[in-house]
Amino acid sequence: MITIAVDAMGGDHAPRPEVEGSVHAARELGVRILLVGLPAELKKELAKHSHRGLPIEIVPATEVITMQDSPSHAFRKKKDSSAHVATKLVRSGQADAVVSAGNTGAVMAVARFGLGTLSSVDRPALAAPFPTSKGGTAVLLDVGANVDSKPAHLVQFAVMGEIYYRAIFGTRRPKVALLSIGEEETKGNELTREAYGRLKQSSLNFIGNVEGRDIFNGSVEVIVCDGFIGNIALKVSEGVAQHIAAMLKEALQSTISSKLGYVLSRKAYKSFRKKIDYSEYGGAPLLGVKGVTVIGHGSSNPLAIKNAIRVATELVRGGVNERIERELAAIPVPVEA
Amino acid sequence: MITIAVDAMGGDHAPRPEVEGSVHAARELGVRILLVGLPAELKKELAKHSHRGLPIEIVPATEVITMQDSPSHAFRKKKDSSAHVATKLVRSGQADAVVSAGNTGAVMAVARFGLGTLSSVDRPALAAPFPTSKGGTAVLLDVGANVDSKPAHLVQFAVMGEIYYRAIFGTRRPKVALLSIGEEETKGNELTREAYGRLKQSSLNFIGNVEGRDIFNGSVEVIVCDGFIGNIALKVSEGVAQHIAAMLKEALQSTISSKLGYVLSRKAYKSFRKKIDYSEYGGAPLLGVKGVTVIGHGSSNPLAIKNAIRVATELVRGGVNERIERELAAIPVPVEA
Repeated sequence: MITIAVDAMGGDHAPRPEVEGSVHAARELGVRILLVGLPAELKKELAKHSHRGLPIEIVPATEVITMQDSPSHAFRKKKDSSAHVATKLVRSGQADAVVSAGNTGAVMAVARFGLGTLSSVDRPALAAPFPTSKGGTAVLLDVGANVDSKPAHLVQFAVMGEIYYRAIFGTRRPKVALLSIGEEETKGNELTREAYGRLKQSSLNFIGNVEGRDIFNGSVEVIVCDGFIGNIALKVSEGVAQHIAAMLKEALQSTISSKLGYVLSRKAYKSFRKKIDYSEYGGAPLLGVKGVTVIGHGSSNPLAIKNAIRVATELVRGGVNERIERELAAIPVPVEA
Repeated sequence: MITIAVDAMGGDHAPRPEVEGSVHAARELGVRILLVGLPAELKKELAKHSHRGLPIEIVPATEVITMQDSPSHAFRKKKDSSAHVATKLVRSGQADAVVSAGNTGAVMAVARFGLGTLSSVDRPALAAPFPTSKGGTAVLLDVGANVDSKPAHLVQFAVMGEIYYRAIFGTRRPKVALLSIGEEETKGNELTREAYGRLKQSSLNFIGNVEGRDIFNGSVEVIVCDGFIGNIALKVSEGVAQHIAAMLKEALQSTISSKLGYVLSRKAYKSFRKKIDYSEYGGAPLLGVKGVTVIGHGSSNPLAIKNAIRVATELVRGGVNERIERELAAIPVPVEA
């Protein structure tokens, strides 16, 4: 049985959604859960749910990383945090994967340095799924694990992203593209122009450059970029979505007729919101580290936690790390130091 | 009287919106318009509008730059295009500014090399306005004039963006920030960390780093970044907005009750759409070139054209280029070659 270590103290509302999501996951996904955190709090929270017979255990961790902790402080000073302990469970083989909705930078640092990178990987990459207009999913990576990437790193991101996409979404030959500012090979910056040439020579289904708006139109499955760019793209898309939702709400509450209209269309809004809700996706895997790590949004609800556990389970089941090792080792591309 | 040269053949639907927007601008803004393009088409279009007594003249240009033309091809091979001729009118002093909804890359190349950059400017920057939740505007620059910028370029973008913001929006000391992936000075990439130190020492109202989502929350007025990043941010925000609008429309048409609800809330949607409509903003100025240049969206409607002419007029009236020359010359910051 696959065992998932859940950092139960990480998210904005921890440990409530972490515990509830874990109970659902244990029941529905057939996985064993190690809930890592302050035992008293976890016991209290767990008592609120019927969990008799489910393979859920509490593993104590005395410290909690907050959203305000800097990644380096959290990594170096809070060695008995729930994120550290969950990661250690993976390193020692007691768990197959870590799931956390905690401080993204801190969890990445703990996973990267606590677990180490796969032997053929220079830098891990955080891969964020986006919903597309065609009802599918596009994965953008790296969205924040690295900045100032080299062309060879983007090639590794492409390979890792493609393997992840195949494992989670079942597409046999996902289309891979570079995020740039024009479709032509010559468009972009020094990094993308150099990476373009290397990707063209790879065995990937590389379709060339795509622009920012193509993330959402379903024309491509795996999109690679430097982590600085990817993080900006991720935050901009969150910002626009929040902004539009707020303005729409305000507009709909402005008159009696629009309010009535809203009441009548409520179901439509609900289905609309579900479509753009990150909770359905669960989280972003940190690809390239030894041991599966999935990082959820800080405001993850129980559904998001359950789905993050599902993603982690599928990555373990799909042997994604073994595939990454194998496929990267086979690439005849020069890699900078 | 301020004279605006309008590239009447540039946009996706040219010359219809260009001509109609120009007629409105001549009537409402008290400016003189030189409509540049194929005379027969422009005369025909102009005849559809009552324009007696308005200061509108047609200036012939025999070629048309399409959206498919590469910037370098358009610049070098279509010397008698409407964009070239409009730019020449500015260079010769017959017009004060160019307005175009044409191929952005081509118009930037024509303006940059046709007009030249201001003496204290290393690289021009395209400045895009974004609506914020607080009902204000944030300006992001550069959104695509340059890639692989140096720290000194970002400082120049900040100074130019601040002057533009003051001239158009009347804010006395707009808040200026760097687009990065975390608020702390140490967060970001090599470029932003170096630029942070220089901006901190400037006389600007520099508030530090902001993240992608802060573009929309009204916490900052002028945001600077490399043109590759800015272009990605711009295209991602367009992509998300289109994506959300499409999904919302689909959801609202799914049941009879939601359709009825939509009818009742139609006014609210209209006001909502108006708020997120770029047409209200008119266009993005290319700051740092000799002569005012404002570039509109390819799909500009007449309102967008009129507003682009308004922005160009205000930049001329506000003496923005003189201010840029003066303020950049006064900066004691080392500028790389």
